[in-house]
Amino acid sequence: MSYMNGIDRINDQQKKRCKQINILSKGYADYLQLDKLLSSQTMLSSQNDRVSYDEHLFIITHQAYELWFKQILFEMDIVCKLLVANLWNNETEMCNALKRLGRISSIFKLLLEHFSILETMSSSDFAEFRGYLKHASGFQSLQFRMIENKFGLKKENRVDCCKSYTDCFNGKKSEEFERTLTEPNLLTLVCRWLESMPVLQDNTIWDQYRRAADLWLEESTETDISCLEKRRDLMDSLFKCDQHKRLVDQGNRKFTHQALKGAIILRTYRHEKGYALANRILDSLVDIDTMLSKWRFCHFVMVHKMIGSHNSGTGGTIGSEYLRSTLSDSYRTFIDLINLPALMVPATYVPPLISQIL
Amino acid sequence: MSYMNGIDRINDQQKKRCKQINILSKGYADYLQLDKLLSSQTMLSSQNDRVSYDEHLFIITHQAYELWFKQILFEMDIVCKLLVANLWNNETEMCNALKRLGRISSIFKLLLEHFSILETMSSSDFAEFRGYLKHASGFQSLQFRMIENKFGLKKENRVDCCKSYTDCFNGKKSEEFERTLTEPNLLTLVCRWLESMPVLQDNTIWDQYRRAADLWLEESTETDISCLEKRRDLMDSLFKCDQHKRLVDQGNRKFTHQALKGAIILRTYRHEKGYALANRILDSLVDIDTMLSKWRFCHFVMVHKMIGSHNSGTGGTIGSEYLRSTLSDSYRTFIDLINLPALMVPATYVPPLISQIL
Amino acid sequence: MSYMNGIDRINDQQKKRCKQINILSKGYADYLQLDKLLSSQTMLSSQNDRVSYDEHLFIITHQAYELWFKQILFEMDIVCKLLVANLWNNETEMCNALKRLGRISSIFKLLLEHFSILETMSSSDFAEFRGYLKHASGFQSLQFRMIENKFGLKKENRVDCCKSYTDCFNGKKSEEFERTLTEPNLLTLVCRWLESMPVLQDNTIWDQYRRAADLWLEESTETDISCLEKRRDLMDSLFKCDQHKRLVDQGNRKFTHQALKGAIILRTYRHEKGYALANRILDSLVDIDTMLSKWRFCHFVMVHKMIGSHNSGTGGTIGSEYLRSTLSDSYRTFIDLINLPALMVPATYVPPLISQIL
Amino acid sequence: MSYMNGIDRINDQQKKRCKQINILSKGYADYLQLDKLLSSQTMLSSQNDRVSYDEHLFIITHQAYELWFKQILFEMDIVCKLLVANLWNNETEMCNALKRLGRISSIFKLLLEHFSILETMSSSDFAEFRGYLKHASGFQSLQFRMIENKFGLKKENRVDCCKSYTDCFNGKKSEEFERTLTEPNLLTLVCRWLESMPVLQDNTIWDQYRRAADLWLEESTETDISCLEKRRDLMDSLFKCDQHKRLVDQGNRKFTHQALKGAIILRTYRHEKGYALANRILDSLVDIDTMLSKWRFCHFVMVHKMIGSHNSGTGGTIGSEYLRSTLSDSYRTFIDLINLPALMVPATYVPPLISQIL
Repeated sequence: MSYMNGIDRINDQQKKRCKQINILSKGYADYLQLDKLLSSQTMLSSQNDRVSYDEHLFIITHQAYELWFKQILFEMDIVCKLLVANLWNNETEMCNALKRLGRISSIFKLLLEHFSILETMSSSDFAEFRGYLKHASGFQSLQFRMIENKFGLKKENRVDCCKSYTDCFNGKKSEEFERTLTEPNLLTLVCRWLESMPVLQDNTIWDQYRRAADLWLEESTETDISCLEKRRDLMDSLFKCDQHKRLVDQGNRKFTHQALKGAIILRTYRHEKGYALANRILDSLVDIDTMLSKWRFCHFVMVHKMIGSHNSGTGGTIGSEYLRSTLSDSYRTFIDLINLPALMVPATYVPPLISQIL
Repeated sequence: MSYMNGIDRINDQQKKRCKQINILSKGYADYLQLDKLLSSQTMLSSQNDRVSYDEHLFIITHQAYELWFKQILFEMDIVCKLLVANLWNNETEMCNALKRLGRISSIFKLLLEHFSILETMSSSDFAEFRGYLKHASGFQSLQFRMIENKFGLKKENRVDCCKSYTDCFNGKKSEEFERTLTEPNLLTLVCRWLESMPVLQDNTIWDQYRRAADLWLEESTETDISCLEKRRDLMDSLFKCDQHKRLVDQGNRKFTHQALKGAIILRTYRHEKGYALANRILDSLVDIDTMLSKWRFCHFVMVHKMIGSHNSGTGGTIGSEYLRSTLSDSYRTFIDLINLPALMVPATYVPPLISQIL
Repeated sequence: MSYMNGIDRINDQQKKRCKQINILSKGYADYLQLDKLLSSQTMLSSQNDRVSYDEHLFIITHQAYELWFKQILFEMDIVCKLLVANLWNNETEMCNALKRLGRISSIFKLLLEHFSILETMSSSDFAEFRGYLKHASGFQSLQFRMIENKFGLKKENRVDCCKSYTDCFNGKKSEEFERTLTEPNLLTLVCRWLESMPVLQDNTIWDQYRRAADLWLEESTETDISCLEKRRDLMDSLFKCDQHKRLVDQGNRKFTHQALKGAIILRTYRHEKGYALANRILDSLVDIDTMLSKWRFCHFVMVHKMIGSHNSGTGGTIGSEYLRSTLSDSYRTFIDLINLPALMVPATYVPPLISQIL
Repeated sequence: MSYMNGIDRINDQQKKRCKQINILSKGYADYLQLDKLLSSQTMLSSQNDRVSYDEHLFIITHQAYELWFKQILFEMDIVCKLLVANLWNNETEMCNALKRLGRISSIFKLLLEHFSILETMSSSDFAEFRGYLKHASGFQSLQFRMIENKFGLKKENRVDCCKSYTDCFNGKKSEEFERTLTEPNLLTLVCRWLESMPVLQDNTIWDQYRRAADLWLEESTETDISCLEKRRDLMDSLFKCDQHKRLVDQGNRKFTHQALKGAIILRTYRHEKGYALANRILDSLVDIDTMLSKWRFCHFVMVHKMIGSHNSGTGGTIGSEYLRSTLSDSYRTFIDLINLPALMVPATYVPPLISQIL
């Protein structure tokens, strides 16, 4: 029970095992391929008479980012596979999906923390080796682009310059990259999953929701007409397919109509048996989308801090201004889940879920 | 002034540069040697019919640790070089040292955050691939051992088993490792720096401090005799070389006597001109020592959580109990700075620093 | 779609609402009772000629801790209520419990971050106002004690001094405090919940597990006799009630025998339908226990850093050494969940869960 | 030396002190005024039949924010006082200022972490008690407004609606608030400090810098004419007072011309004796500005996540869109420090600082 419980005994046993360790010691380094990993840091400034020590930090930080990007891609693939299988009524796999999504979110949180390391470097420190980087830019992380693609960010949602970005990679890497564009992405698969929600397979529940919405608008005591008008427009955008479609065409909505219905129903009946886990999956998707947004912003302010507003970024971009432009809602994949609250009919108007056949 | 300021203009400029980017795009990946970095993840469980997906996280996390360990070693080398030069009266290099020490501290803080990623893996998840790791253990990180060595952790302060650990590496790596044992470490260099403190070069200031201590003990109104006794013992340990030496021999003190004097004087006159930065360096050393301690603890609870108290660790150690034993004060390099408060004579007893010649 | 989309329109609308705001503005401050909250910081050192500015940080940090302790207690109460109701087969409430447990864990994580603020204060800074605090000590946080009690830490698991601690509070507070000692705590309720696991209500599944264990021990190819012996002892501690009881009496096990069985079965069949969420609850409990441990450790190193090993803590304790003694396993409530891995029979020996009636 | 060193002895001593503790125990709670602090949480939803448990989290989080806002204001006041005194050649007070600025930065970092607690609440959870909050909004935090004012954010830099915001507070609070508008703010004081830089007191150094700039533009091998043009414009904005003034009038520059010169000289000669600490102060100001930006963004995405884009915020604002509009550069107080890199003449063109008389 004591904190040093058995330390002496431990030492005895450990001594016995020491020879064993000498043999095993190669294991750790081999397993992690540390020879490759730890020989991959070459400072460009070291070719010069005056090494910029901070360049080492710059390399390590970006390499750490890339390692984690790989892990994020790995977890996304698993989530996509889980979504392809039928998640409804499968608590085990829903929990598995949740674990993966939660982990992706945690990794993004960790990546945000990485900025506080880079920020121990001042813009003056950076200026000392910035010249060497002219042919490399964070803008060019293939894996980050793949994450965006897999997440569901489409070409047409990007700012102009980046649309043709995909041309520039070739060879085997390019195939893998192409697959992130051609294979169903997270957005698509989440939509399909929501569309396949059992209770949505006939119109009963949706008709009920629409009647509740009508009643709500009818009985409204809101006196501000523009406010009432806006509410009506929002409801129309939910119930009228063509209005929904127009929003999709404008890039302001990304879910299919049927998927949006599914999300609404899930949120409405979130306390019902069988809906809790699915709601948590929606929450997790919003969390990741939010973390991605935070990552973009922190990236932007970091670059802004390093080079200011007037300088060009390395890699030929407009630098921080390019990054700033990626902060718009058009870069948010699950914006429809975020905008859901305004589409929700107040709980008091919605009838209970009687003969639920989830 | 607007947030979207000039986005259109940007798009125009960006289009022009797009071809350029296609050529440059190789830059980023080449610079970071991503081909090596991202091809270094081989799951042992994938040799089996049933892949344990969580093994990928295990690999990535440990690789991220190793990358940051390399950065810590890099920064420590710089700090050591700065300490070898004469820091006194050199604001620029003191600030440089502070920046490096602060960064090491920040990196350790980031490494602590990494545990929250590993902790998204339950002990059950870990159990699924733990069998494959039998020849590898976190216990074997050569770089972590080097960090400890460079920091100043000595063989005799380690728990028994680890003392012979150094035998097990050979080849080029081993040379680099040996240097962390033979070259002056951070502890040694900090001691030398404190010893060289200008004001300590004659006895005036120290004699003054001793007289202040005597007066304090004399005038004490403390009625608890054991408390008074303890205080007297502490002062003796400070002023009597043999008592100091005994503590050093017992492993309870690690600073040289002269260095301890330096630290006391620095703390006492921390508000005097020329002492502020040096005090901040002491604070930073304590911070890093504290972070290292936290890292050990978090490592311990993480392993404890993964395998419990009863299982052996991978690599043939006693697992979590071994890690627990590294939490003792004997593993704290700058324990003397931490224990300083009890050796400080109250400010009211200490005469001002009149003819300071720092 | 643009980032500044409609800002002009916003400004128009906002102007209209400005008068409204003037009226509403009291709302925020009233709601949060800011007059009370922000008038509760009185620096003791300000009674003196020389204010110690860092005392303000000390007060704010501790107050922030207390606010969050209140929230933790609030969430724990909800979890306890949920556990009293029957969680089995209730996905919604399991998810609710998980959310609460996850939040407690997140709050502890935030509390860990608070230490990095306190650590911007050096031991010298602290020494300047430490004298004023002689009648107050972090050791005396009633709410932290209540958290420990509610979590399930028992009097007999505490180091001696603290056992009589409960005497010292009286009045209404004391009643609330007493309830944390007399009402069923989280440990008790988790045990009851595990005991009530449907599949455990007859002996079939447990007999099966025991046979699997026997076969495993029988067929073992382990040649190290002491290792085999240890494994056999562990299995006996699981299957023989008297051995389990002895461990409980020694304070080395805290779960009831039936609850331990439940945990084993849950872990074993974690991939089966209906067991995933319950397993996540076990994970969450381990997470919180781990966070609490980390909090203790960080508290210890912070106090250690502030006052060293030799000084007494404020409030008359032995200071950092007292805190160090709370790091032992006897302070870990869910230690049995942590020690589970060594009690698990390898998956290949365990028969599938055929007629599961969870 | 062992981890449990003297625990028995401790227990003995502690027993002796137990009576003492009973008397002292009131100390902690009184010191922190916990009776007031912990009685300040009243859930509006509890007036209803159905309590929304998550409202408690909402209150605690906002109260924690307010506590920390108070601490930030406290530290800002100290920094302002230090800046009013002559910092040049005063290492001690520069270190003090740095410590305070670093702490403010750390607190903002902690405040960012708070969002991850609020984010354990989904938009559905929030919707359950949002109705009760109609008269309160985070928009109305007086202290946050005071932080902005003290930092140096001016009325004319705010989006329209907020300009008249100051009307709405009266009584004693209002006085304190008014002072944040009338007293010299951090921006003003930093400018004065830079203006008073000894080396700037005659024109020698600045003339030298201008000649270096001229030479740089002359010898430029840049073939892109628009790029060269832009560089020339930037240099004009630095050397021609009227051009600088125009930028100030447009709100695109906030430093005085002389202060900008000071910043340029500090950055240019950052490796010179006596300039290191002053450079670190500039870095710290940029850090805080950056953290404040991140706080705004995280606040925005959190609110966005809670209520979507279409709903009004509580307190009558346009909700998340209002927050989005505060992300523009006009809200960044030390934007001139961030934009400095583009105004720096390459080091090779700048003559060394020969007869420096800092």
